[in-house]
This record gives sequence, C-alpha cells and structure tokens, in this order.
Amino acid sequence: MATVKAIFNEYESMDGKQVSLSGWVRNHRPQKAFGFINLNDGSFFETIQVVYEEALENFETIKKINIGSALNITGKVVLTPNRNQPFEIKAEAVEIEGESNEDYPMQPKRHSREFLRKNAHLRPRTNLFTAVFRVRSILTHAIHTFFEERDFVHLASPIITASDAEGAGEMFKVTTLKPQDFKKDAPFQDDFFGKATNLTVSGQLQAEIFAQAFRNVYTFGPTFRAEASHTSTHASEFWMVEPEMAFCDLAEDMDNAEAFVRFLVKRILEKAPHEIDFLNKFVDKGLRAKLEKVIEADFVRMTHAKAVAVLKDANVTFENTPDPLGDLASEHEKYLVKHFDGPVFVTDWPKDTKAFYMRLNDDEKTVAAMDLIVPGSGELIGGSQREERLDVLKKRMKEMNVSEDELWWYLDLRKYGTTKHAGYGLGFDRMLMYVTGVANIRDVIPFPRTPNNCEF
Amino acid sequence: MATVKAIFNEYESMDGKQVSLSGWVRNHRPQKAFGFINLNDGSFFETIQVVYEEALENFETIKKINIGSALNITGKVVLTPNRNQPFEIKAEAVEIEGESNEDYPMQPKRHSREFLRKNAHLRPRTNLFTAVFRVRSILTHAIHTFFEERDFVHLASPIITASDAEGAGEMFKVTTLKPQDFKKDAPFQDDFFGKATNLTVSGQLQAEIFAQAFRNVYTFGPTFRAEASHTSTHASEFWMVEPEMAFCDLAEDMDNAEAFVRFLVKRILEKAPHEIDFLNKFVDKGLRAKLEKVIEADFVRMTHAKAVAVLKDANVTFENTPDPLGDLASEHEKYLVKHFDGPVFVTDWPKDTKAFYMRLNDDEKTVAAMDLIVPGSGELIGGSQREERLDVLKKRMKEMNVSEDELWWYLDLRKYGTTKHAGYGLGFDRMLMYVTGVANIRDVIPFPRTPNNCEF
Repeated sequence: MATVKAIFNEYESMDGKQVSLSGWVRNHRPQKAFGFINLNDGSFFETIQVVYEEALENFETIKKINIGSALNITGKVVLTPNRNQPFEIKAEAVEIEGESNEDYPMQPKRHSREFLRKNAHLRPRTNLFTAVFRVRSILTHAIHTFFEERDFVHLASPIITASDAEGAGEMFKVTTLKPQDFKKDAPFQDDFFGKATNLTVSGQLQAEIFAQAFRNVYTFGPTFRAEASHTSTHASEFWMVEPEMAFCDLAEDMDNAEAFVRFLVKRILEKAPHEIDFLNKFVDKGLRAKLEKVIEADFVRMTHAKAVAVLKDANVTFENTPDPLGDLASEHEKYLVKHFDGPVFVTDWPKDTKAFYMRLNDDEKTVAAMDLIVPGSGELIGGSQREERLDVLKKRMKEMNVSEDELWWYLDLRKYGTTKHAGYGLGFDRMLMYVTGVANIRDVIPFPRTPNNCEF
Repeated sequence: MATVKAIFNEYESMDGKQVSLSGWVRNHRPQKAFGFINLNDGSFFETIQVVYEEALENFETIKKINIGSALNITGKVVLTPNRNQPFEIKAEAVEIEGESNEDYPMQPKRHSREFLRKNAHLRPRTNLFTAVFRVRSILTHAIHTFFEERDFVHLASPIITASDAEGAGEMFKVTTLKPQDFKKDAPFQDDFFGKATNLTVSGQLQAEIFAQAFRNVYTFGPTFRAEASHTSTHASEFWMVEPEMAFCDLAEDMDNAEAFVRFLVKRILEKAPHEIDFLNKFVDKGLRAKLEKVIEADFVRMTHAKAVAVLKDANVTFENTPDPLGDLASEHEKYLVKHFDGPVFVTDWPKDTKAFYMRLNDDEKTVAAMDLIVPGSGELIGGSQREERLDVLKKRMKEMNVSEDELWWYLDLRKYGTTKHAGYGLGFDRMLMYVTGVANIRDVIPFPRTPNNCEF
C-alpha cells in the first residue's frame, strides 16, 4: 500500500508504476467521459489527483461519488508537463470503501470557524485543520526530542491532586460523591480519596521532587483552569511543558528556554513546510517571516524595573499606566516586543505579582522570575529560580497563606540536599498558536473545553 | 560541567583530566586521613566514587557531610587497576551546595516498599526508583518514537468529557458546583460546562475521529477509573497509549501491536542496560531472559473458542471453569502463556464480554476483538476492529443501552466516508511493570492515586 506522501516524495522515478492507495475524496469533478478526484489519505497535506475514464466498468457509479467518501484506488503514476500538477494517478480500479451522504458538511468551500468548531469531528478533514493538527503532532514530537537529546528525564506528574497551593487559578473539583451524601462538617471524608481533590494546575512542584534526584527533568501533560474566561487565548483544559533543572540559576533557565523555543520553531519549519506555506498564505501572511526571524533573533533580557522605565519613556498613551509594582498589561507586552523587534525576557518581578516558590532576590522586593513575551502571542513562557532556602521559603509561605502541613514534602526537599534550581512552563497550545498563526485557542485544540462547552 | 554519565562513557581517555561535578551523596565513608563519597548526579544509574584527603582546607567539614547532601566537586579523574572500580575522582575542592539533615530517611540500607511509598518525594533517590523512573522515561520516548517513525499523528484526546459511553468503568465527576448549589431537577445546569462531566476512561472514540482524517493516529495520555480496587495492578489514574488506524483490519491491528511491543522491549534493553541489570539482580531474576525472549518469540494468535478448548483439554483443575461465552480468568491467562511459552493474542470474543463499538463477526455471536496476554503481567493490550457499518452499530448501541443522542458525532463518522478501521489500548504503567519486573503498580507511578490515597 502506497501513501500520498511517499508518491509526492518519489513521483519523478515512478512514471508508469502501478500503485494502490486508500483515502478520502476532498474534491470531485465528474465530466462526460472521465473525471477528476482529489484524494487525501492523511499522510500528507496535499491531495493527489486521480483521473478515471469511462473504460472503467463502474464508471457510472464513480461519477456519483460524493465528497467525503472513502475509496480504494489502484492505478498508474503518470508524469505530466504541468508544473503545478507534475503527476497524477490514472485509475485502473476504483472501489468504494465507504460512501459519504450528500449532506456531508465539509464541502470544498469556505466555512466559518464557528461552523467548523461545531463540527469538530469533521474539521480535521479540512485544509486548515489538517495543517494545524499535523503541526500540533510535530510540535509534540519536537518537545520530547529536545529534552531526550539533552538527557532530561520525563515524569508524568499527577492530574488529580489534593493540593490547592500549586499556583494561582481556580480549580475543578474531582469527586465520586453524590451531592446528597455530602456532609457539612466533614465534606469529603467519604469521598474516593478521603479528602477534597482537584485537577492539577501545574506539575511543577512534583517536577521539583524529580529534579532533586535526576537533575534535569520535564513534565508534558494536561493542566486545568476553572476560570470563566471567554477570551481567545484561554481554555479550561490545555497542555503544559514544565522543565525543572537542579544546580541551575535564572540565567541558565533562560538559556534553556531560548534554546527550546528556537529548536521548536526550527523543527516546525523543517518538518511542516507545506503546512507553514498554507498557513502563511491563508491565515497569517507574516508567519514564515516571523518564524524565520525568531531562529536568528537575539532574545532581549531586561528586568521588570527596566521594562517599566522603557514603557514610561515611550511616546505612547497606555490605557494602563506602567506600574513598577504591578503586572504588565497586554498593551505593554505588545509595545515591548515591537520596540525590541523580537522576543523579550522580563526578569526580576515585584514579589507580590508572583507565586510563593519563586526565589527572593537580595533586594527582598523582587523575585528571580522571568516571563518570555513574543510578537503575536504575548506571554509564551513563565519561569523562575525556585526558593531553595528553607527559612526564606517558610517565611514566604506564611506571608502568602500557603499551608506548611499540606506541602510538608516540598519543605523536605529543602532539608535534604537542597540545591539552587530553576524551571519554567510553556503553554503548549499557545506555542501552537504562535507557530501556526491561528488566533483562537479553540482552533488549535482538537476538542476544546471552555465554559459551557464540553462537546465530543 | 561534566556529568557522571559522560565520565563513565569516556573515563579511559580521561586519566588526569580535571572535571567539575554536582550531585548528591548516596554513600559516605569518612576515614581518619581521607574519605570516600559516592556521588549520583541523576544522569546515570551508577554513582561515581570521589576520594578526598586531609590536604583539603575544609577536610573536617567534609568528613561530617550527611547522606543526601548536595555537593559541587572539582577534581581529577584517576584510573585504577581495580576492575570493579576502574576509576575514581580525586577531589581538589568540595563545596557543600545544600546540607542534608541527619534524619534523612533514605539511608543506604534496605527499606520496605511501603516505607518508600510514604516517602514518594525522596524514593527517586534510591537505586530501585532511579532505575524504574528512568526506564519509565525511556519507555515514554520509545512510544513516541515508534509512532513518529511510522508517520502516525499524535492527538491529545480530551481529559474532561461529557460522555459516559466510552467504555466500562466507573468515572470521576468533574465539577465546580458547591453541593448546596446542586439542583435536584437539573443537577448540572449551573455547572461549569452546563452539564455533567467526567474524567475520561479512554481517548479511543476521539482517536477514531482523527483516524478518519489522518489515517494513522495515536493518543498517549492519562485516563481514570473510579473503582475501589485495592489490587496491585489497579490505579485510579494511569496513562494509556491508544493507536487507531483507518483502512486496517484486526490482523493488521495485531501486526502493529506485536511490532510495538517488540520495539519497546528492544529499546529498553538498548537504552537502559544498567537499569535492567539492577532490576534483573534485585527485583526479578528472570527479567532479562524474559525480555530477550519476547523480541524473538512468535506471538501466538488464537480465537477465544480455541483458547477455551485448550483450557478444557488442560490437565489442570481451574477455580473458574473456562466458559465459551465468558471472560478469561487470570488463572486461564497464566496457563495459556505458559502452555504456549510466550505472548498470546486471543481473538474473536463473545460479543457480550466486549464494548458496543467492536465489529460484529459474520457469526453474529463474536466480535473482532483481541487481547494480548503476556507472561508475568496478564493482559497488556486490548483492541478491536471497530464497527464501521452504521446500521449494525446502531443495533448494537440499542442492545447495550448506549445513547445515540450523546454519540451523534460517532455515528456521523459512519455516514461520511466510513472505513474499515481498528486500534488498541496499551496500559502504559502495566507495560512498565512488565519491562521492570516490578509487581505493584504503586511502584512504577511517580505519585500513584488509589482509593484513599492522593498524597504529594
């Protein structure tokens, strides 16, 4: 059995060769005495053109084949002088594997994104989603490859957690209780785990455990936020990559993050040239140029204080006044990446803007945190050096009302061979938006979960 | 910065060379005028021996270093005539990165597995768990490599699902409701997703969607069972690999599963020789022989009817009588793999023992299902050809009380270009038990979740 991909790669040496193919009809133009079928078999972005003629015994049946049907085709590769269509398959037999009803929703015309979301079970058969979801798969493999090549140990951090201290963000409850069995005084004592449990918002704290044994580790798995955000960049369920490195400081953490982003972008350009061409043409005309630039670009590194100074010096009226003690607004991020014409690491954030586990700087006002902001997608990575000093960590937990009892094991890591260490989180789906140019997170996740939406 | 792994690989050419290392003390034997430290840096299974002498300015401090402490060491590689210890590091500077308290629980002696589970945050620092979790990571990478090399597209199937038809098994509820807000007449209308949602038990149905677009696809992610099982092979949260292939029948499905298992075992033997040696010595003395045999073994294929006949012919009294219409008991599986001296595929199961989506055979009594049972671990893989015929599928759903309304999209796949297709699921953690010889699933999962246990 040949694949469309294999034929596209080798057609020049295949003139006259017989092949067998299976796939789905993307387009069909029947004529009086012959017809054209564009077949996609999922192996390749492009379709292959199949010509059939009236000599075929089931010619009249073939002529009636609907878009979306599954076919098994045997035929000969024929080279043509047409530059845009340098070869085609001349069918010798066309067998219908599965017909498609006439009301097949994915007709070859423009559909609204909203319509396609409602048909998320069929949209992977369109050009846009063929491209996006193949890039998604290539990006997944690239992530594992980057860390495997560097001897990082992967760990599956737990999805169900009894901790609610992992970081900011509303959590989903996980339970087997029926509401009528809920006890007011000890609500979860009869629950499956004997206590309240949630869906994780981050695997970082568990990754720190593994980093203190394997040195360089990473998680890559689903995380959750029960926030009623209806923006184009928030999903309730999304995947995160979280590397964690022992004997590593903030500068080395940024070195790794920078190498990581470059590696991923380079891989996508190498492994998905057809998909990037399509996305560059139909989704984001600056996409390829943006990606090629990131591979070469210097990633600027500046402190939060410096970034606020740059914003204050800017000849721009921001809706939100840049605040030396506050977070950066989206408009600020946009200005910075434009001003520096590339990705920017903002470091050393005011401690009150960040989580309890980030390492307190000597000024005792800022923490050794970094955010990587990129043109087009805003914050792509957030990371920090972690607080490795037991006494400082305890003080910060107290200040921020984080329970020592719950995180006894996290404190233990600081009692038994604590090390300087650091890590970061990369939102996988945001990275995919970045490399595809697709503007809505609902269109890069196969079956997105958002408030009031849990279909498929 | 050198790593222990790099030094072990290249020590022969490194005599006299200065290196810098960071890591943790696994063992420490201070003498009067010198001492030995066994350092592990997480890059390699073995520790490296560091010798320090009283000439070092902080000699007295070094002598008091506790097990578990983190150190930064500079020293020279020195080759020795000792075959078991062909080189060591002669320390020139020993800096304490982080002390370990005297009560460090992971002292170099034998600990019970139960004690180690209670210290799951420290057990990755022991030999056993260094081996198990590195093999886990290698197995993760091997799984992605197998499918990437074969052009399979990875999809992240959703974790939160509104379906409860995915397969057998109790599900965890996911909710943001407070029990007091629960309405008896429309319980989940005010919940986050506007309806009842659960944690997935399988990504198969969504993988089928993708297989009808990309042909060869797979999922690899967490799945959940809210069953109060207290056995050594059940966890509430575990990872599954689920390939799905269009234009594929049951025989080709088994071909892929067989190649997959062989590939994974081969990779582990290649990439984790030290870990397998250790596990073979201390955990399961037949491990290496078992794994080497699987690479060469013929995987027997037989129908369920034939398997029952073999069991009936056996000169053994089973507790459970082999039932032509029933499931196989664990004792039956054990007999079969012993009798055939290797892995066995059992195919064509009585339809009432299997899920609604499995393809009905022409006898209308059995379905095109397969279980792969292996020596030592029982069922490793379960798969089937899927029912691609709309009318037959609807009939089976009706018989088994599966809602058509809920699975409208699954039915759509049979209306629009349906194809012969098949797939299987491999329990990742069970596979890890198989390749490590570790008998309890709690000891192959970093932070296992089981009834009444959700620590860390």
